[in-house]
Amino acid sequence: MKATVTKSDLVLGINRAAGALPQRPSSLQILQNILLEFDPSEGIIRATATDLEIAVVVEIPATVKIQGSTTLPGKKLQETIRELPEGEISLTGNDKNTMTLKCGKARAVIKGIGREEYPGLPVLSDGAKGAPQIDGAMAFKAQASVLKNAIKKTIVGASHDEARQFLTGASLVITAKKTEFVATDGHRLAICDFKTETKLKKGDEINVIIPLRILSELSSNLPDDGIVEVQVGDTQILFVSESGIYYSRLVAEKFPDYEKIIPKSTDRKIAISRRDLIDALRCVSPFSNPRTHAVLVSIKSDRLIIKAETPEFGEGQDEVEADIKGGSALDISFNSNYLMDGLKVLKGEDLQFEVGAKISPAVLTSEEDSGFRYILMPLRQ
Amino acid sequence: MKATVTKSDLVLGINRAAGALPQRPSSLQILQNILLEFDPSEGIIRATATDLEIAVVVEIPATVKIQGSTTLPGKKLQETIRELPEGEISLTGNDKNTMTLKCGKARAVIKGIGREEYPGLPVLSDGAKGAPQIDGAMAFKAQASVLKNAIKKTIVGASHDEARQFLTGASLVITAKKTEFVATDGHRLAICDFKTETKLKKGDEINVIIPLRILSELSSNLPDDGIVEVQVGDTQILFVSESGIYYSRLVAEKFPDYEKIIPKSTDRKIAISRRDLIDALRCVSPFSNPRTHAVLVSIKSDRLIIKAETPEFGEGQDEVEADIKGGSALDISFNSNYLMDGLKVLKGEDLQFEVGAKISPAVLTSEEDSGFRYILMPLRQ
Repeated sequence: MKATVTKSDLVLGINRAAGALPQRPSSLQILQNILLEFDPSEGIIRATATDLEIAVVVEIPATVKIQGSTTLPGKKLQETIRELPEGEISLTGNDKNTMTLKCGKARAVIKGIGREEYPGLPVLSDGAKGAPQIDGAMAFKAQASVLKNAIKKTIVGASHDEARQFLTGASLVITAKKTEFVATDGHRLAICDFKTETKLKKGDEINVIIPLRILSELSSNLPDDGIVEVQVGDTQILFVSESGIYYSRLVAEKFPDYEKIIPKSTDRKIAISRRDLIDALRCVSPFSNPRTHAVLVSIKSDRLIIKAETPEFGEGQDEVEADIKGGSALDISFNSNYLMDGLKVLKGEDLQFEVGAKISPAVLTSEEDSGFRYILMPLRQ
Repeated sequence: MKATVTKSDLVLGINRAAGALPQRPSSLQILQNILLEFDPSEGIIRATATDLEIAVVVEIPATVKIQGSTTLPGKKLQETIRELPEGEISLTGNDKNTMTLKCGKARAVIKGIGREEYPGLPVLSDGAKGAPQIDGAMAFKAQASVLKNAIKKTIVGASHDEARQFLTGASLVITAKKTEFVATDGHRLAICDFKTETKLKKGDEINVIIPLRILSELSSNLPDDGIVEVQVGDTQILFVSESGIYYSRLVAEKFPDYEKIIPKSTDRKIAISRRDLIDALRCVSPFSNPRTHAVLVSIKSDRLIIKAETPEFGEGQDEVEADIKGGSALDISFNSNYLMDGLKVLKGEDLQFEVGAKISPAVLTSEEDSGFRYILMPLRQ
């Protein structure tokens, strides 16, 4: 096989595919490799990586002179091409699965493994023949920017601490008119919905759990323009975009019944500046308990007083002006890290912070960021 | 005690002092604290930190209303002031060693320990009375920028891997006209000298070993302008600068006899571009043995071929044009990380790379960077 490709295209494509490489040394050595298929008719090198749960397939524009395919160690390939000089890279593979990359006077020879050892994925094994398809899937189209934004914000609600991972995925609920992503770690819940046109009938609902890993890849790599086709099957999901094809098996678990957690109405509607609340949290956080990260929010008539205290070290306090409608004064505690996570992803400076009773979930929203809600359980004091 | 200070002055001063805090939890809890002395006559808050080997004293400009002193936990103080709003900070201490910091509506209360528990340092314990002095020390003055540059480059030759630390310090040799810093980890040696006017007689020499920790602080924190006074005693050294006073005990060891390692003459004088050599090393390094980091440099008549190979993965190769005077073709191996360390700190793009026999040390210099030599032992092939 033989092709030329620009360094920037190759680096971008291989890095995107590499997102699906196993994150831990796998017993199946071949999965550490990236499958490269040189396709002269399409004018692409197709790069595929998978850990057997998720897969990413990227089409890298290339001038392919001789077709063929092989697999190369993913990390070594990434390291190698990153350091090659800028410009055209020629790739020449021999029948011993050794690939020679040349660029200027630089030359790299990487040893690979034959593609016949590479596992096929249900819908992707014959990727060369037209667009991949999940049999019997419900398909719909979404704007890439809208989908990317929803995924990016929702996964903030998921647990990032592997040791106490609450759920391995985020929920995707699709109805006739709406798509909704939800993630939770039991302490907070992020929920983001947007309008979509589907072929579902009114009242029909598709409800699946998507592994966080593929959502994390999508949130980083989906393009900012264009359309993404989503195919949802019974056990698999596929996102077909300009930046690549993102495949995942679905999680066979039941998502917790989160609707009942979302407060229907809250006593206090607090209009507050995002920036001011972030600054105040930063100011008092050094004094919060290192285990609970608790900060005390005292709701007064026209401001919040934020306070944290650790008896050994001391205490921090700051105030934020706010426009508070409804309810009486209240002291309520939150995990400052979880509160900060929500504040960081919300768009817009004018936030609405809805607080009910001392033990009821609070809700953070922004007018500029319609469709997104960040729900936070208070700490017991 | 009571004073006001701008946030930026306080953050800069406390961060500089904090460089001398013990790097590991010390049995002596008080050393984790920073000593703060409010001095109305000088208009400063003096901040001192020490691990008993090194010490840093910084004078922070302040409006001191009531004098006094206390010690506050260093890391907690750093975290706290970093997050306070920009502007004037008021500091008010009470007689229970609790300090209240206020800035706008933000307030922090930090619990400290009485200054009477803070250990004194030989020359610094009465720091309030005039400039500190090492009894019987040889003192000389150097330009801060020159001293900073020499220290920064020299410490590159020292071991950064604590597990195989070769020596705990760098050598400082002072003669009537010249100051020289030398550091080595047994594999490479960095040497930097500059002219100084001292009171030493011709033939006299002062020869001490300075711990790397204080050199590292100096390389980051010495000012870029002005003069530094250096006082060298029998067991201690002091650097008095505008950015602070840097104190250290000297290392009571013998520095290896490095003069005999420095080649007097080499067969090949190779004029080469710094940038090109860095690029070539980066290009082949992914293929160097992960344990030895070996790269093979083949010296031809008009270029160097740089090559690395790991049988499992493959090989990388690149070429760099060079103007080579003297000697015949030669293959010689180096640790690519060590070679890169030298290339990174050398100033100027036109380097001289002097290479002798296969097992003789090579020397890297730059015309623009007179006074600095980076000497590198080849690897056995």
